[in-house]
Amino acid sequence: MSCVASGQGQVFAAGAPRVIVAGATGFAGALAAHLLWRHPDFELTAVTGRSEVGTRLDRLYPRYRVPLEIEALIPERLDGLDAAVVAYPHAAAAPTVAELRAHGARVVDLSADFRLRSLATYEQWYGSHPRPELLEHAVYGLTELHREQIAAAAIVANPGCYPTASLLALAPLARAGLIADVVIDAKQGISGAGRAFDESTHLSMAGENILPYKVAAHRHTPEIEEQLDALDPAHPRLKVQFQAHLVPLDQGELASCYVTPTRAVGDAELREMFAAAYAEEPFVEVVDAPPGVREVAQTNYCRLFAASDQHTGKLLVFSAIDNLWKGTSSQAVQNLNLMFDLPETSGLQ
Amino acid sequence: MSCVASGQGQVFAAGAPRVIVAGATGFAGALAAHLLWRHPDFELTAVTGRSEVGTRLDRLYPRYRVPLEIEALIPERLDGLDAAVVAYPHAAAAPTVAELRAHGARVVDLSADFRLRSLATYEQWYGSHPRPELLEHAVYGLTELHREQIAAAAIVANPGCYPTASLLALAPLARAGLIADVVIDAKQGISGAGRAFDESTHLSMAGENILPYKVAAHRHTPEIEEQLDALDPAHPRLKVQFQAHLVPLDQGELASCYVTPTRAVGDAELREMFAAAYAEEPFVEVVDAPPGVREVAQTNYCRLFAASDQHTGKLLVFSAIDNLWKGTSSQAVQNLNLMFDLPETSGLQ
Amino acid sequence: MSCVASGQGQVFAAGAPRVIVAGATGFAGALAAHLLWRHPDFELTAVTGRSEVGTRLDRLYPRYRVPLEIEALIPERLDGLDAAVVAYPHAAAAPTVAELRAHGARVVDLSADFRLRSLATYEQWYGSHPRPELLEHAVYGLTELHREQIAAAAIVANPGCYPTASLLALAPLARAGLIADVVIDAKQGISGAGRAFDESTHLSMAGENILPYKVAAHRHTPEIEEQLDALDPAHPRLKVQFQAHLVPLDQGELASCYVTPTRAVGDAELREMFAAAYAEEPFVEVVDAPPGVREVAQTNYCRLFAASDQHTGKLLVFSAIDNLWKGTSSQAVQNLNLMFDLPETSGLQ
Amino acid sequence: MSCVASGQGQVFAAGAPRVIVAGATGFAGALAAHLLWRHPDFELTAVTGRSEVGTRLDRLYPRYRVPLEIEALIPERLDGLDAAVVAYPHAAAAPTVAELRAHGARVVDLSADFRLRSLATYEQWYGSHPRPELLEHAVYGLTELHREQIAAAAIVANPGCYPTASLLALAPLARAGLIADVVIDAKQGISGAGRAFDESTHLSMAGENILPYKVAAHRHTPEIEEQLDALDPAHPRLKVQFQAHLVPLDQGELASCYVTPTRAVGDAELREMFAAAYAEEPFVEVVDAPPGVREVAQTNYCRLFAASDQHTGKLLVFSAIDNLWKGTSSQAVQNLNLMFDLPETSGLQ
Repeated sequence: MSCVASGQGQVFAAGAPRVIVAGATGFAGALAAHLLWRHPDFELTAVTGRSEVGTRLDRLYPRYRVPLEIEALIPERLDGLDAAVVAYPHAAAAPTVAELRAHGARVVDLSADFRLRSLATYEQWYGSHPRPELLEHAVYGLTELHREQIAAAAIVANPGCYPTASLLALAPLARAGLIADVVIDAKQGISGAGRAFDESTHLSMAGENILPYKVAAHRHTPEIEEQLDALDPAHPRLKVQFQAHLVPLDQGELASCYVTPTRAVGDAELREMFAAAYAEEPFVEVVDAPPGVREVAQTNYCRLFAASDQHTGKLLVFSAIDNLWKGTSSQAVQNLNLMFDLPETSGLQ
Repeated sequence: MSCVASGQGQVFAAGAPRVIVAGATGFAGALAAHLLWRHPDFELTAVTGRSEVGTRLDRLYPRYRVPLEIEALIPERLDGLDAAVVAYPHAAAAPTVAELRAHGARVVDLSADFRLRSLATYEQWYGSHPRPELLEHAVYGLTELHREQIAAAAIVANPGCYPTASLLALAPLARAGLIADVVIDAKQGISGAGRAFDESTHLSMAGENILPYKVAAHRHTPEIEEQLDALDPAHPRLKVQFQAHLVPLDQGELASCYVTPTRAVGDAELREMFAAAYAEEPFVEVVDAPPGVREVAQTNYCRLFAASDQHTGKLLVFSAIDNLWKGTSSQAVQNLNLMFDLPETSGLQ
Repeated sequence: MSCVASGQGQVFAAGAPRVIVAGATGFAGALAAHLLWRHPDFELTAVTGRSEVGTRLDRLYPRYRVPLEIEALIPERLDGLDAAVVAYPHAAAAPTVAELRAHGARVVDLSADFRLRSLATYEQWYGSHPRPELLEHAVYGLTELHREQIAAAAIVANPGCYPTASLLALAPLARAGLIADVVIDAKQGISGAGRAFDESTHLSMAGENILPYKVAAHRHTPEIEEQLDALDPAHPRLKVQFQAHLVPLDQGELASCYVTPTRAVGDAELREMFAAAYAEEPFVEVVDAPPGVREVAQTNYCRLFAASDQHTGKLLVFSAIDNLWKGTSSQAVQNLNLMFDLPETSGLQ
Repeated sequence: MSCVASGQGQVFAAGAPRVIVAGATGFAGALAAHLLWRHPDFELTAVTGRSEVGTRLDRLYPRYRVPLEIEALIPERLDGLDAAVVAYPHAAAAPTVAELRAHGARVVDLSADFRLRSLATYEQWYGSHPRPELLEHAVYGLTELHREQIAAAAIVANPGCYPTASLLALAPLARAGLIADVVIDAKQGISGAGRAFDESTHLSMAGENILPYKVAAHRHTPEIEEQLDALDPAHPRLKVQFQAHLVPLDQGELASCYVTPTRAVGDAELREMFAAAYAEEPFVEVVDAPPGVREVAQTNYCRLFAASDQHTGKLLVFSAIDNLWKGTSSQAVQNLNLMFDLPETSGLQ
């Protein structure tokens, strides 16, 4: 891994909010740092890590060109901070979020710690919650569903990448009370496994492969179900069949959703419904042909294609995102933009 | 593309059946030629093509090392032939099959021309059938479902790769009358598109991509439905939701099947059902963890994993094959072995 | 391939130079259109093609989001144009460049037509030149070598991607008269073959492969030799051993250069030489470890690493670029920036 | 990773030599076990490992279908053993080889411990040698160069994959005294890094990349030089410029060799020289076009293409192998075949 002899300077507006990325050594945190370093309206003041302290981030991630040294997270140095992106694993994230809140920073948390409204559901999947008292201050950070609450939130729980793709696909149908049953078959590139060095990521094992994983037990299922329940209170307790697969690419995720509708819905009505739902959204593109994930690689866009199957009567929705961008780090920036009253697209185009 | 200066000789048993591959320039035909060339119990006497006549096959496909020149298919030279694999597109295949039959050869046809029992269904998807009178002589060539009829057949209609993976996954459930509804989400490597040179196969377009295709209208659906109907006559007219996706690898196919059962089925019962169904099968492996397609690459194996989802009550079956091998050409050889009373595994291990 | 229902508007400064891309259906032209569409200081007024007229560019290249329809190149509509990028094959490019020049537009030509100073050399490799009279108005467009002439040029002959990587690696050594002999072993992703649909680009043939091509006869050799001769007039007529290979990725190119020096050069002197040569360059990064091409993917950067081999005495230089960006289209934009007196980095970061 | 419910039996001839693989958990050992398990003329009696004891090998490597449990290497159980393949890292291998020799087993060692004739050279690159007294009993195991000594050897030092490809390319030229200078630029798939879980093998880092490594200091250089010296005693002490690169595929290796000849050699002479050198070799194919590594994937073949560059006078030789097969494990089997007087191709076609 190489390191440029002399880093280039960050450029940002005077008086820009000061932000740090806590946990910048992983894929999500490193990309968040990259996006904020080149963001015209934020000042990235530090990147922290629990390992690799003293290493420059552009040596760990040469492609991102962020010439900051990774620091330990020292509470005394948090004064004056406006915001933070926290990219720690679940359970490790919540105490850090609490610390940051104590210093007045507003937080976008990339972990699962604040995504679920139900503490019981959290504890069923993740074990005891380290800071349950903070749950009430957290807003679910799927921008297109909760824009107003996000703008005012102290803590934004950035959604998982699978729920992001799935919920953007299903929200118009859920709001219309149309989902009687749903199967979500999701496929993701290897970056979804993060900076994990094992059989699941080794090119000679993950390459030329298609691998289903976490069969019948994926932690993202309750997150999707909670949000669908909220969108369609008339049909609560929908049980979602969600299944994840690893396929051999780097970044990209497709959620193929198969919905048994509560009533017959034709192609024309379906397409109109999706066009209307997302007409004003800067980052959701409703398209007229099945989208490939290449089309949204390294962007904050989600591309959706919906079709009604005349043969079976089912509704099909395909949702393509970049799992690291809209699925994680660029959606965090989209949320930060809202929280600091900046144009939602700032730094993302 | 390179060509070895001097080819090596074919080795086969004395008195071995004489076989040709008609249509050896495509992926399926070329692989069939490769498998038959190295087969100890068949003599591959010719490879034919509608293009590339005069070119040696090992120049078109250097990895296969078949040093035969591609010939035009000349009826006079078909005398004395015992068998043929026909690898032409649908509609082009049937007349060739008829010609070969007229010379007494038994045929494994890789096209769709003889897969469907219903002429009406064929014509709905493929147009007018060139040789409908031959349909009654054809047997559906999914070895594990129709072994006895295949052994005696004049024409074996080799299944499509998607139906192969899907039907091996669903047959035990269909026979038990357990399928109330099913979604099949299939993913396949780019070799599934064959020797097509276009956007769908260019590495700079198909690479780093996941692409759904033929949404709500895949020709393999009626083939799957016909076979499931035959397996479960008590629940005819099941409508199958089948969806195909291209993912960036060469060879490999996974069918993820989501079954809404007609009654609750637990994990133990499910696994026992699959173990029993395939206990004697040399090429179907029931495994205890989700299979990756790498595990069956360049083999005639199908790996199956079944699980009951306690949360949703659905039954999940994952079926991994190599689309060009068990999905196409090695299954053709498996069928030829049966047709000529050879060990079913001959030339395939 | 999908197409967004409604395109988003282009944003550019008032009074920005008006530019077209002629030949936007290929990889190079499409990327140039993408870069100019999002460029803050150019107005992209049209994209033209010899095929696909009437198709929107974002349907051919969904990832680029340029919502312009491909037009035929109509001379009457060229009035008022300030600049053009021409992305036609060699021999087809020159007449179009002439037409554009006749209307006063300044041109960056991506073909080979104006790269060679010697007409005889051109004709040896490419056949008769369609517009030899224009050669004297053309400047070789490797920005870092000919910045001043480019700024004033009517026609800029954008270099080939291999010469770009090779010459940036070798220029400091050539200027110092240090190259007695050189072997350049270059590896490139499949996008280097462009929108060609054949065996060289099919994922099932190009994937899992490493393929040398154009052995002992690559058209880029004389282009490299001419430029090296100009840099080191004291050692003219250096014969460059250049060899290209295709490796299975999309975008990315590495030139590994093995130089037999005219005198012994140690590591310290070598590194200092490279640091000094490129200290002021915004897009050339001299790094302290071997660069991977991922580090420069989808950027205009070139990363260079130089080392002296104590064992053999040879000098090794590794040069990593994105063949479609710095190797082609983003270098064209870099040159356009110079030609119109804009910051060299505008639109490229 | 899945495991077949019931393994299939190994088939081998009565009285077949008994062999173990010591170190079967790595890529090389696992493949050797796979090849020997299906070999008709060897009985694979055990697979051992320093980790994963008690795990079945087909759970670690599902694609290989070797249903043996990994065992610790227990000296008492080595009696009656005829042969062993040792696949430990250098320095760890030699003591195990000594133990196996003490029990009378003949050994093919895949490590570097017995490859170099010069102890001084070994210690310069690898540190102190654990069993220098065994060096005199070891033969360098490049089959095509040392066939007779291998047949009689107690210890065969299987070559590295880079020396295998490089020496097969250069041997005809070295024997003819034609090499004045040579640059070897080698490219290899990620399996060359073995079961190492780090940045170099993670698909999201190694994918879409081309990476030079071990610049100016590759351990395989002295191995190549020693063998070339032996082939061309008249020009000893040739200094080889060897450089390795990782490219994003699984298995496959290409060595591109650029030779400055001691005298002019034309294409016709060159090709005749290569044809003659390898006319009788079952696993070396001299071809008439540049070979891609796909052509030899998962085979014991080496494909060679040689050309004389009229422009520079240099001789170019391209050598394609599968780094894990001919480069490592199948060459080990080829050597075992020789050592036990079996047909050299047994189990390898």
